[in-house]
Amino acid sequence: MSLVLIIPDRKLEDLQQRLQQALPDTPIEIWPDIVQPDDVEFAVVWKQPPGSLTSLPNLKAIQCFGAGVDAIIADPTLPALPIARIVDPTLTQTMVRYLDGVISHYRLRLDLFAQQQQQLLWRPKSPRRLTHICLLGLGELGAAAASHFAAQGYQVSGWARTAKQLDAVSCYHGVDGLAAAVAPADVVICLLPLTMATESLLDSAFFQQLKHGAIFVNVARGAIVDDAALLAALDSGQLQAACLDVFRQEPLPAEHPFWRHPAILITPHVSAVTNVSTVVEQIADNYRRSQRGARLLNLVDVIKGY
Amino acid sequence: MSLVLIIPDRKLEDLQQRLQQALPDTPIEIWPDIVQPDDVEFAVVWKQPPGSLTSLPNLKAIQCFGAGVDAIIADPTLPALPIARIVDPTLTQTMVRYLDGVISHYRLRLDLFAQQQQQLLWRPKSPRRLTHICLLGLGELGAAAASHFAAQGYQVSGWARTAKQLDAVSCYHGVDGLAAAVAPADVVICLLPLTMATESLLDSAFFQQLKHGAIFVNVARGAIVDDAALLAALDSGQLQAACLDVFRQEPLPAEHPFWRHPAILITPHVSAVTNVSTVVEQIADNYRRSQRGARLLNLVDVIKGY
Ligand SMILES: NC(=O)c1ccc[n+]([C@@H]2O[C@H](COP(=O)([O-])OP(=O)(O)OC[C@H]3O[C@@H](n4cnc5c(N)ncnc54)[C@H](OP(=O)(O)O)[C@@H]3O)[C@@H](O)[C@H]2O)c1
Ligand SMILES: NC(=O)c1ccc[n+]([C@@H]2O[C@H](COP(=O)([O-])OP(=O)(O)OC[C@H]3O[C@@H](n4cnc5c(N)ncnc54)[C@H](OP(=O)(O)O)[C@@H]3O)[C@@H](O)[C@H]2O)c1
Repeated sequence: MSLVLIIPDRKLEDLQQRLQQALPDTPIEIWPDIVQPDDVEFAVVWKQPPGSLTSLPNLKAIQCFGAGVDAIIADPTLPALPIARIVDPTLTQTMVRYLDGVISHYRLRLDLFAQQQQQLLWRPKSPRRLTHICLLGLGELGAAAASHFAAQGYQVSGWARTAKQLDAVSCYHGVDGLAAAVAPADVVICLLPLTMATESLLDSAFFQQLKHGAIFVNVARGAIVDDAALLAALDSGQLQAACLDVFRQEPLPAEHPFWRHPAILITPHVSAVTNVSTVVEQIADNYRRSQRGARLLNLVDVIKGY
Repeated sequence: MSLVLIIPDRKLEDLQQRLQQALPDTPIEIWPDIVQPDDVEFAVVWKQPPGSLTSLPNLKAIQCFGAGVDAIIADPTLPALPIARIVDPTLTQTMVRYLDGVISHYRLRLDLFAQQQQQLLWRPKSPRRLTHICLLGLGELGAAAASHFAAQGYQVSGWARTAKQLDAVSCYHGVDGLAAAVAPADVVICLLPLTMATESLLDSAFFQQLKHGAIFVNVARGAIVDDAALLAALDSGQLQAACLDVFRQEPLPAEHPFWRHPAILITPHVSAVTNVSTVVEQIADNYRRSQRGARLLNLVDVIKGY
């Protein structure tokens, strides 16, 4: 019985060490140098290379190392096993603080003043009136952000797949509820998972449903957005600005027009990175659960895709 | 008995109309087109031209249209009259929200990511660890900002002229207290008034007392800072960044090196602009007080300069 980390392109000493402390009797292997593939029963995974999971004949469960499992599910060789994902209050708070800072950035027109600075222009302007924020996705992250902004005094609407009730948030759901959720919003924030149902969901028809001059923020996954439609909405003024933390291809290729668009703020997928120290206990817990045949915490539904 | 507005370069219809509603029987004159100078007993003033007040022989009181009276006191022709200034919870809240947004901007490294975007660089980095904030000035604005950041979980120190007690804020005072107040701070925010004692107070010796790599924010008055010392501190790395809302000369002249410094964020004196609708009642109140010989609200001490 061992545990493997399949997390390419990341230093894993810290995670390995902390997991070893939490699970002193469990060998921890690091892909691709697995010594005993037959012993591996539990895999902690982030953007695994196709084939890496199928090489483990006795694997019982997959623990995603982040909140979004789209990259795991996209693996055509994915074995039919339970998949758990991270739900972490620290991660949630990090995301909410990122979004709060982005809203302040636009409210205070720091985007405009930075542009004016480039042009040596002194043009005082009062803050943008951003009074209504819409959250697409009302899961762990979306619901927390919605409640945060409602508590700050913003009007807040939200949209999910199924009906929701949240204090001080106007909740809509299903394909038919989307237009009503976004229509009053000055800022629309995407916190949907990437699934078959949400891939390219935010297309030109979607951007037409927003208030003219709205601001769009994507902290979920790049492929939920139709890039060309987003650019067209910015160029027509339908969107005033966009803040993008996630992209179809990451790192965002140098030739992508997002880089040079004056109304786009790019952050390099930093809005809420999994924090090793706060998630190690839930990973160890899920390992123990899988060992004793118990149901994992924070299981995802592979059919729904999140 | 009339009231005059001496506020050059600003549209005054709104202020005039609202004041007229609050004081229906009082003629409201607008400088420079004063019809009956002898009747004027109360002046609402912002950056008055020297001589404008002395042309009013029966003036009894001066109401500053903002929080800072330095420009009024700098007038060599200033008559020896009571001067009141604005203290407005809305103005205070506006300033606190500006500062909160600026802190988030730096915490999230939006400055760095904007620069990386210019260079098509994808370099993820976790937020800056900004844990300690120092407020220079613990008056209406500084104390409110200090309490706000303390409530957010920051460690907060503050500095004033006289001893202060504020919940969860380490308070220092007097010339001897300055070094201890700023030494632990990741961000130092200036909210001092501009007076004889604070003019060029923040000089190269001051910047040397900060933590290496600190961030400096000036939302008070430009002349409190020695511009050359600030630039030198940025160039040596002693300061990591500066956000400046106020300048010795405003608009900041196009040739000033602040405009082009990559570590400086310039906002054009917008952090907390007086809001006509929320201050009109206190101005009317002070007018009535001056008419009945009562003590004005929010008087400043002309000798101290604030
Ligand atoms: N940029 C980053 O650093 C970062 C960090 C963490 C996470 N993320 C992304 O954020 C996403 C959301 O995370 P989370 O933890 O909040 O996920 P979650 O708890 O699974 O919530 C997903 C929400 O989206 C809704 N939803 C799913 N499919 C939908 C559809 N077809 N139509 C309408 N609503 C739909 C769900 O509706 P129901 O409630 O009705 O099921 C739920 O409210 C993750 O999947 C991940 O991709 C990004
Ligand atoms: N950028 C903008 O849009 C904007 C808007 C509003 C105001 N302002 C500026 O902000 C300044 C502060 O406003 P405020 O309403 O907070 O003023 P305030 O209530 O008069 O408070 C001034 C604070 O500074 C301290 N102080 C004064 N002289 C000092 C000295 N020599 N050494 C140490 N501390 C000293 C005072 O100490 P004590 O408490 O011991 O007296 C007090 O705590 C205004 O004067 C104005 O210039 C800028």
